[in-house]
Order: sequence, then structure tokens, then C-alpha cells
Amino acid sequence: MVQKVYLSNYELKEALSEYLGRIKHSFLNKELLNTEEALGRVTSEAVYSKISSPFYNCSAMDGIAVQSLKTIGASEKRPITLEEGKDYLVVDTGDPIPREYDCVIMVEDTVKIDGDKVKIYKSAAPWQHIRPLGEDIVENQLIVPSGHMIRPVDIGAMLAGGVNTVEVYKKPLIGVIPTGTELVDPGSNLKIGDIIDFNSRVFSAQVTQYGGIPKRYGIVKDNYDILKSILKKAVSECDIVIINAGSSAGREDYTSDVISDLGEVYIHGVSIKPGKPVVLGEVENKPVLGIPGYPVSAYFIMDKILKVIIEGYQGKKTEKVQRLEATLSRRVMSSLKYLEFVRMKLGYVGNKFIATPLSRGAGSTMSLVRADGILEIPQNVEGIEAGSKVQISLMKNIDEIKNTIVCIGSHDPILDILSDLIHVKNPDYYLSSAHTGSMGGIMALKNGETHIAPIHLLDMESGKYNIFYINKYLKGKNIALIKVVNRIQGLMVQKGNPLCLKEISDIYKKGVRFVNRQRGAGTRLLLDYYLKKLNISPKDINGYEREEFTHLSVAAAVASGDVDCGLGVYSAAEIMGLDFIPVCNEEYDFAVPEEYLEMETIKELIDIMKSNIFLKELDRLGGYDYSSIGRVITHNDKKLTFAKKVDKDVHLKAIDRV
Amino acid sequence: MVQKVYLSNYELKEALSEYLGRIKHSFLNKELLNTEEALGRVTSEAVYSKISSPFYNCSAMDGIAVQSLKTIGASEKRPITLEEGKDYLVVDTGDPIPREYDCVIMVEDTVKIDGDKVKIYKSAAPWQHIRPLGEDIVENQLIVPSGHMIRPVDIGAMLAGGVNTVEVYKKPLIGVIPTGTELVDPGSNLKIGDIIDFNSRVFSAQVTQYGGIPKRYGIVKDNYDILKSILKKAVSECDIVIINAGSSAGREDYTSDVISDLGEVYIHGVSIKPGKPVVLGEVENKPVLGIPGYPVSAYFIMDKILKVIIEGYQGKKTEKVQRLEATLSRRVMSSLKYLEFVRMKLGYVGNKFIATPLSRGAGSTMSLVRADGILEIPQNVEGIEAGSKVQISLMKNIDEIKNTIVCIGSHDPILDILSDLIHVKNPDYYLSSAHTGSMGGIMALKNGETHIAPIHLLDMESGKYNIFYINKYLKGKNIALIKVVNRIQGLMVQKGNPLCLKEISDIYKKGVRFVNRQRGAGTRLLLDYYLKKLNISPKDINGYEREEFTHLSVAAAVASGDVDCGLGVYSAAEIMGLDFIPVCNEEYDFAVPEEYLEMETIKELIDIMKSNIFLKELDRLGGYDYSSIGRVITHNDKKLTFAKKVDKDVHLKAIDRV
Repeated sequence: MVQKVYLSNYELKEALSEYLGRIKHSFLNKELLNTEEALGRVTSEAVYSKISSPFYNCSAMDGIAVQSLKTIGASEKRPITLEEGKDYLVVDTGDPIPREYDCVIMVEDTVKIDGDKVKIYKSAAPWQHIRPLGEDIVENQLIVPSGHMIRPVDIGAMLAGGVNTVEVYKKPLIGVIPTGTELVDPGSNLKIGDIIDFNSRVFSAQVTQYGGIPKRYGIVKDNYDILKSILKKAVSECDIVIINAGSSAGREDYTSDVISDLGEVYIHGVSIKPGKPVVLGEVENKPVLGIPGYPVSAYFIMDKILKVIIEGYQGKKTEKVQRLEATLSRRVMSSLKYLEFVRMKLGYVGNKFIATPLSRGAGSTMSLVRADGILEIPQNVEGIEAGSKVQISLMKNIDEIKNTIVCIGSHDPILDILSDLIHVKNPDYYLSSAHTGSMGGIMALKNGETHIAPIHLLDMESGKYNIFYINKYLKGKNIALIKVVNRIQGLMVQKGNPLCLKEISDIYKKGVRFVNRQRGAGTRLLLDYYLKKLNISPKDINGYEREEFTHLSVAAAVASGDVDCGLGVYSAAEIMGLDFIPVCNEEYDFAVPEEYLEMETIKELIDIMKSNIFLKELDRLGGYDYSSIGRVITHNDKKLTFAKKVDKDVHLKAIDRV
Repeated sequence: MVQKVYLSNYELKEALSEYLGRIKHSFLNKELLNTEEALGRVTSEAVYSKISSPFYNCSAMDGIAVQSLKTIGASEKRPITLEEGKDYLVVDTGDPIPREYDCVIMVEDTVKIDGDKVKIYKSAAPWQHIRPLGEDIVENQLIVPSGHMIRPVDIGAMLAGGVNTVEVYKKPLIGVIPTGTELVDPGSNLKIGDIIDFNSRVFSAQVTQYGGIPKRYGIVKDNYDILKSILKKAVSECDIVIINAGSSAGREDYTSDVISDLGEVYIHGVSIKPGKPVVLGEVENKPVLGIPGYPVSAYFIMDKILKVIIEGYQGKKTEKVQRLEATLSRRVMSSLKYLEFVRMKLGYVGNKFIATPLSRGAGSTMSLVRADGILEIPQNVEGIEAGSKVQISLMKNIDEIKNTIVCIGSHDPILDILSDLIHVKNPDYYLSSAHTGSMGGIMALKNGETHIAPIHLLDMESGKYNIFYINKYLKGKNIALIKVVNRIQGLMVQKGNPLCLKEISDIYKKGVRFVNRQRGAGTRLLLDYYLKKLNISPKDINGYEREEFTHLSVAAAVASGDVDCGLGVYSAAEIMGLDFIPVCNEEYDFAVPEEYLEMETIKELIDIMKSNIFLKELDRLGGYDYSSIGRVITHNDKKLTFAKKVDKDVHLKAIDRV
């Protein structure tokens, strides 16, 4: 294995300025456009009017054009009568005023006498209600300066000023070349080893957003010569070319070599994370970039480098990203070697913004979908402590963040459904959930980081749910419980239950591969409760250490055949087409500080939980008893929370379906 | 003349809510798009993944896939040797991991021995560097909710999750029908009475900005039957139709009648200014709007009504316009009857935002180009006092406003050139000038509303320029003068000087029509100085009352033949192709508070004033002596300002050209 080395480890700023210096000779090409087609384009020279507007004296009102001299002395008592043709001309707004008239009287100020006569009761001043030539625009007047981005109102003023064509900077055509033998187009029949080429589609959309025109080429296999010939073609057809990926140091990463072969690589490697293995080069005087393959790395390279290039190419100014100050909910570590971009979730809880880091995996497209903003941790900083004030660059609208119910805690598939329904019912409202497990939810409440915490926490001693933990960990806070569902937990096993598992103790059987939930998850506590009761040591369970973060991902691991079983809810098994062995019922509730019960968003959430449309969804998923749904138990009622036994019918119904 | 009456005088909010209620049945039509083409569109239903991503366990690194069991005990002292094929498989990032392996060792942590053997020095944990199936996206997971505007990252996650098509709301196709016998397309040979149809082009650009698709129809003459048949056609082809104009009460305003004829008019007239005469109706279940003809009225109707309709049609949320608090520089009056939208210029002067109203004429397209924001004055409010704090809805970026040199005072064509050059040299800098005359500039300095004030103020007693006025009106302020030019003022007359005017006293001649500058203009003071010297009474000058605000508009009035002469600078006469009779030289300077001399923008301005490129422009325009240009005279040097006599050569050169 030959390991390639990066040519460089530039800082981002330095790399960008070095690279822009090398390639900017290819920027700012001009073209002449019809003015009406120039929306959003940048003027390459100052635009001066060619004619005045109006280019003749015209009426500013509907009425009659007269000579002001003939109106002198008119009054309520002594009106003056004027005759059409002799004394006046009927004019509408915009009509030209012939030389012989010097003012206009509004139709409202005239009284018709007969066919061609009117009376007026007030004299008219010279130039009254006349728009003189050049009132709006005078010939040779500056309309917009060079370097101005053309808006609809500019198009109006230019056309009014006789400017029918305008010289602007060209938009760049960006060639996008996806490479990789493993890549397949979306919609292909997938087989193990295939990777769907979504990157090139994301790039095309980003290029469009930045103001360029994307041109996507077909997938190029990992073959040096083919890549070389396609790059040659793309460079001849486009203004800028990006190659994805092969910019790293794997066996088949040809991007850097091919660019060197046809032109020059200036920079290979920038000290940012994600995004390090970028290639910045030039072929035949056109910028050519190698973009890393991991979608999150690619995203940041596009956003931090290609955006600047595309905007610079056409003379656009980069708009400042909106930032917001937030309090960091947990410590974020960082490498001293890199400028790091950390995807953050923002919550507006208790009148302040709380920022929580999302997954930092470079392969997590969903973390970009979920992110509200980005935290930049400078190079040479080891990390930032919890509680620090940090600046977050926003990826979403502030109002959207302010109207979002933050929901941190235990995962259940119904959270996705609630998140959709609340937004459908009120397009201004959102629910965003982070899956940290029930104990994570309790801690988030304690730290004031969440509005609601979905929890299902079994007290090992009493066998009771939720209240014990609230009393223990959230003492002194007025926490209410919104009842949600009693749900069936059980073993998810492959279709047909090939290992014939029957009860929770069967996971101890030889050869059975289990998948666990993460520490702090209610389901993990439930497992531990049973192991303790059955006197089984965790280290005797094959797979106790393998942790997943949601019911669905446990179900997916079982479905894939990697493991034989996992503990989770019925609905997740149902969604993934698994068999299900019920183990017990448990109370899944939302813990919420009582003050937040007054929030409009939380009121709406409770309404939706009780709505028929939501209950139907619960029936469809199966395994839920919702007889208490939406009931709010405040701090003072807490004795009520020792809930009744689960409805046996629901339990049986679920088992029937298995 | 039959005067039509408006059907209604709705408040804007009420009109909008009433109209939306009537037409919203036609909104939210769905269509299925390829996911990769759905950028910026709004989902009509929640999007759930169809497959997991990755959909098999794969390598997160370039390296080798091994069984973790075989690595137990490896250390620096006792490395373990592994053999390809038997113990390991070489994998690149993204490659699938076959069942027999359970972890990946990074290439950096292996040492090659020979062809197919490597040594490792550290044991590997199970699942290390493996991306398990569903790590990013689990099958059936919510990707984006309904009503979500699709971004590039959403396209990535959807395609990764096997969602290749997505249901979104349709973009509306907006038919734009320009009407009016007087309308001509841009580029036509213009004759008196023609109006260039720029409105329909501005509408098309606005529709595009709002997210609709414009379809512009040809110009329709003022003919009821033709308009009716075109409207029928447009309604059958488009989703929404707008007709411009004919929405008012002139003789040929058919819009309302035609809509009633084919469908129904719900609202005719809304109590906003500009914009009142709007028609809101429906034909064959499609919204049809009549938009007023004045460009500024049309702009506000488009922005306040059609934007909401286009966004609502496709499920987009209207983003809040950014607002900013500013101090009102002068009193703004308003009608009690209307909600008024006043175009405002903003300046960032002395660390606060100052808002100054621009022209309120409904025909002034340039006022929209120049506006930085809009002040809304509610109905039933008579006006707002100078010095009040007001909220301005921004039309430009805050940074742009902060980096703009505010220049209020006397007009000269060179201000347009400086405004362009400063922006070309530094794309972040702007210069914006308001033409209030020299005395207006002095007052703006006094009130802290401007950075610089261009002035040319002749003291009637001493015959000296500028200093006298600064000492008199700005006592106690440290005001410096930036020397600009000595310029030639004279009479602008029609080409060939048909009336054979020779000197300033000739404007007193019988039959000579004069055009004056506004009160407070330096040129007006200059005229008054001469009239006093010559003992001529202003009321004996024909046209003394007709006021224009710039040299160029005086020149335009002369060029049009409306008047015979006006007083102004040589360069304006030159631009408009007029003859010029020199009267005197005067000192045109920038007054500036000394503290602002430290601003980067002002330093840049002075640099540009001294640059060759600018001096060449002065030569091209002619009539300027720039021997002192850019010299700064501070408060303490003021004796220096009694400048030397003008260079006679420049004077003569200018006369030669006449």
C-alpha cells in the first residue's frame, strides 16, 4: 500500500487567498444582456440613462390641460367656464401636454356642464399636476454604479431611462464530475458495495444557490485515463470544474494526479475539519477543484471555498452569514490541528439560545439537515467548556428556531409523527427532537436545555415509572408530566424468529447476538433491570457493548442480519418488518417544566396529541395504549402518576399482530 | 366625463385577509418532482426514508478489515503479523465489510512487510472504524416534514435515503398583461406621448423573486373587447393573472369592468399610499389582479399583495423583512386616510442611523432605486416629527448602509462619477448623494445627518465662498473643507444660442423664459447675488418660480425647449448638448466634520479625488479647475480658504469649447 501524502496543510484563509490570487485572472468576464433579463446579475460598468423620463411634459393626473392664465380669478362664487378644444384638452395620467397648455386641473375639480364645457371653481397654478420632462430621470444621470446587483426596481429605472441592454459579469458554468467505481445513480437497483451518487446532485443545487450554472457529467469509474479525458472535456466546456471525490489518499484517489498531469495543483490539504483533503488547482487557466467524498466534508468545502469562487467570478459580494450568541450546553472538544466546523442544534429555551453539538461524523447527511447552525472552533483551541457563550452561524431563520419545541430524551417513532403534524397544523411551529435517552432528557431539563423530555424510566426498586427519577434528579423544579402512551417493549427478532426466542432470558443463550441501547436510555435501564432480576451478568451477553441510539437503528441492525435480537418498541419492529416478542408495558411520558405549559407551541402539541389524526397514526403503528394521552399531571398532583395497570386488550392486540 | 367610483376602501390587512379567503381554494396544487430538481420547493407531505444509509456495514476509513479477535494482544513490543486473504481484506472508505470481519484498522496503523503481509502494534476493538448499516439514516425515518423548503442538504439526505422523487407544491405561472394605447416596448422609436412599458418587465422580475414563473403577454391597446379576449386566454393558460394598469378611474380604465364581466371583483381600492387603485378579483377560479400604473404604486401592490399570494400559493412562508431603528431627520406628514409607505434614505452618521424621506412621487422609479428602506406611517396618523425614532424596513443590506458616505448638499455631475469610482475601487464602499442645495447641506451638517456637504455658497457682502456660511451656521463645530473644484457657472442656452443671449442680465429681456434652481441652492443664491447687483426684481424674471433640483434637470428643461435658459455648470450643458455662456467661477468644496476625516471611507474618497482616473473624467466633462483638489483645510487653517483667483486658462478652455 502506497500512502500518498498531502502537499500542504494550509490554513483556510491563507489557502483561499493564495488560490484566489492564482485563479482570479479568469474571473469577471463580461456579457451584454437585455436589461429585462438581468435580474440578480452584477453590472460591470456604471449605468447612465440615455433618455429622460418622462421624455416630454405629461399629465400627472386624469383631468384637463389648460392655460393657467385663463383660470385666474375662478372661485366658488365666480366659477369660470372652459370649452373643450378652445380652452382645454382632456388628458389622462401620462398623456403629453401640448405647448399651449401649462397646467392640469384634476377631473375631481371640474364640473361638467354639457357636451364640451366644464366649470372650475379655483384658479390653477402654472405647472400644477404636470410631470416635467426629466422629473424622474434626467438624460445621462447615473442609475446604478458598477458592481451593483440588479434588482427589479433597477430594471424599471434602466428601461425608463432608455437603457435596453446592460453589461454584466458572466455567471460561471461549473462542471461537476462524480468519480468512483462504487457510485451508482439514484434509482438504480442497489447491491452491496454500491454508493448512491447524491453528492453531485447536492453540489449542483449548491452551485445554483451560489449563482453559478451547474453541468453534471456522468459517473466516472476509478480509471486514470478515463478521468483524464473527461476532465479535459469538462475544462474545455466549463468555466470551473469540480471533481468528487478521489481527493484523499486511498488507493484509487487520482484527482490530484490528474490535475497535476493536465495543469497544476497549488494546494492539497487545508487544515479544516471536516474538509481537509481538498485539492485546489488549475487546468488551462480554469480553476479545478477536488472535493472530498464524505458529504459533510464536501458541504464545508463547497460553502467555504467554492461559494467564494463562484461569487468572486461574477463580482458578487459574499453576504455575511447571520450569527447569534448562544450558551453551549455541553463541552465540545476539538483538535489543535484544525479549524473545526461543528454542526449545532439551537433551542430557544427559557428566553435564551442553547447550542448543542450534533453528530460530528463526516458521513452524516442528517446532521446537516438537522443543524440550525455552525460553531467554528479555531485552530490551536482544544475545546470549549459547557456554559460558554458562543457565536453560531445560522443555517435557519431565527424565527423558526424561536418557534421550535425542543424535545430531548428518549426516542420513539411517534416523535417523528408529532414533529410533522405540528408543522402541518401551524406552519410557524416546529418540534425538534434529539435522542439522548431518558436520562439525557432528565439532565437536559435540569440544565434548562429543553422544553420537554420524553422519558420512560423504571425504578428498579419500586418497579414504577418516571416519577421517581423526576423527584430524585429534578428536586425543587416544578416539573409536570404530560401523559403520552403505554407502549409494549419486547425483543425484536428476524422474521419467522429463526432462533425461536421466547423471553428476555433467551438473549443469554449461546450463539445469540444481541444489540444494546446506549447508556442512559430507558430501554437500557429496562434491560439492566431484567438482567439483575434474572441474575445474568452483562458481560455474558454477546453484544452488550454494541450501542445504538434509537429503536429504529436497533431494528435496522436486526433486519440486516448483523445481530439476532434487540430490545425495543413494537412500532419499530413493525416498521422494519421484524417479529416481536412482548416483554412488558411501560409508561412513556413527556416531562415538562410547568411554566412551559403556558407556551402556545406546547398547548398546540397537546391538542395534536389528542387529535383523531394522531391517534389513527398510533393505531397504524400498533403497540400503543393511549387511554391517558394528553392528560397533564402537575407537580401537586403527583400522587396520581402511579398509573393504573396497562389495558390488557391493547397488550393482547399487539401480541396477536406479532 | 364619467368618473368611476372605487368599490371599496379596505385597510390593507383586511383586504388581504378577505381576498386570500376568497382565492385560497386555488392554492397548494401538488406535483411530483425528481428530488434533485426540487431545490427551493416546499414539500407537500412528510418525507420518510425508503432505505437505510449506509444500507450495509462499510468501512469508515482507508485500511484493512480484520477480525478483532485476531488482534488481541498486539503491542509495540509484540506486534502481530496478518496475512491478506487469510486475516484481512484491504478496504477503502465506503467499501462493504464482509460478514467474517468485524472491525477496520486504519492504513496509518499498519506497517507493510512484504507483498501480502502487514504488522499491527495495537489490538482493534469490535466495530472500530465501521459505519454500521443505518448509521446516517434508518429506513422509514423522517427526513423532512411537510411544508419544508428543500435545501441542497435535504436533497442529499433524501437521495441517500432512497427518496428519488418528492411531492411538492406547484409554482404558480403568473400571466402579466400590460395595457395602454400609449405603451411601447423598450427599444421602440419613441415619439411624444409614448410610454415605455417597463412595468411589465419589473413585474416579471418581481414574480421571479417571489418564486413564481412570469409569462408576459404583448401590450394590449385600450380596447375593452381585446382586453377581454386576452384576459380569457391568460386565465386559461396561467394560474394567476395581473393586468397593468387601467385599475384607476380614467376614461379608458377597463380593468375592473373586464374582470367583473368574466368573473367577479371582490375589492377595488385599498387605503394605502401609494397603491390605492388596486383591483382584486377572480375569473374562472383563478386570482386576477389589476395593478396601478404608476411604478411606485405598482411596486407596493406587488410587494404587499402579490408576494403574499405567490408565496401562499406554493406553501412558502413569508420571511420577515429586516428592520432597523433610525432617527427621523425631518418631519414627515401623512394623510389620515391612508397607510403610507415612504421611501427612505438611511445614513450611518456619528454611530446612529438617520432616516431621510425621499421623493414621494408615485412616478419616481429612481426613488425606489435610491431607497434604503421603507417607513410605514399608519392610517389615522398625521405625521411623524423630526427626531423621532422610527422602524425602517430595509431594502438594502445593513453593511452596505454602514459603509456608505452620506453626501447631502449641492449637486454637481461629478458626484455621480465619485459615487461610481469609490465603489469600483473598494466594492464595500458606497457614496450616496442627496441634492438639497448648499444650504440644505449646511443644515444637514448642523443636524448631524451627513458626513460631507458639497457647497458653493457666495457671501453677498464679501464675494467670498463657503467659509462665511460655515462660520455663521456651524459655529462651535470643527468643520474642515475638502477642496474640490473651481467650476464655471453660466447660462445654458439652446444649441446655436437662438436668442443671442450674452450675459446674465439678458435673462431680464422680454420673451426670455428662464428656469430657476430651488431655494437654498448655491446657484440660486448666485442668481440672487447678480439680480441684486443689477437691481433686477425677481418677479420681473419670467420663470423665476419654476424650480429644478439639479443642474442636469435645468439643462434638460432647456434642451426640451420648454424654457430658453437657466443658470448652471458647464459640464451639465456639455452633457445635454447645450451652448454655454460663462458668468463666473465659483468654489465647489466638501464641508466635513473633522472627526470624519479619520473614516476609512472618507480617506478613500480623498484618494480617489486625487487619482488620475478621476481627473481625466473632469477633463472630459470640462469647465473644472482642479488645481487644489483633495487639499484638506482644517478648522485652524481657515484663513487659507480665501483661495487664489481661478486659473484663467481653464476658464478660456471652457469658453473655447462652447
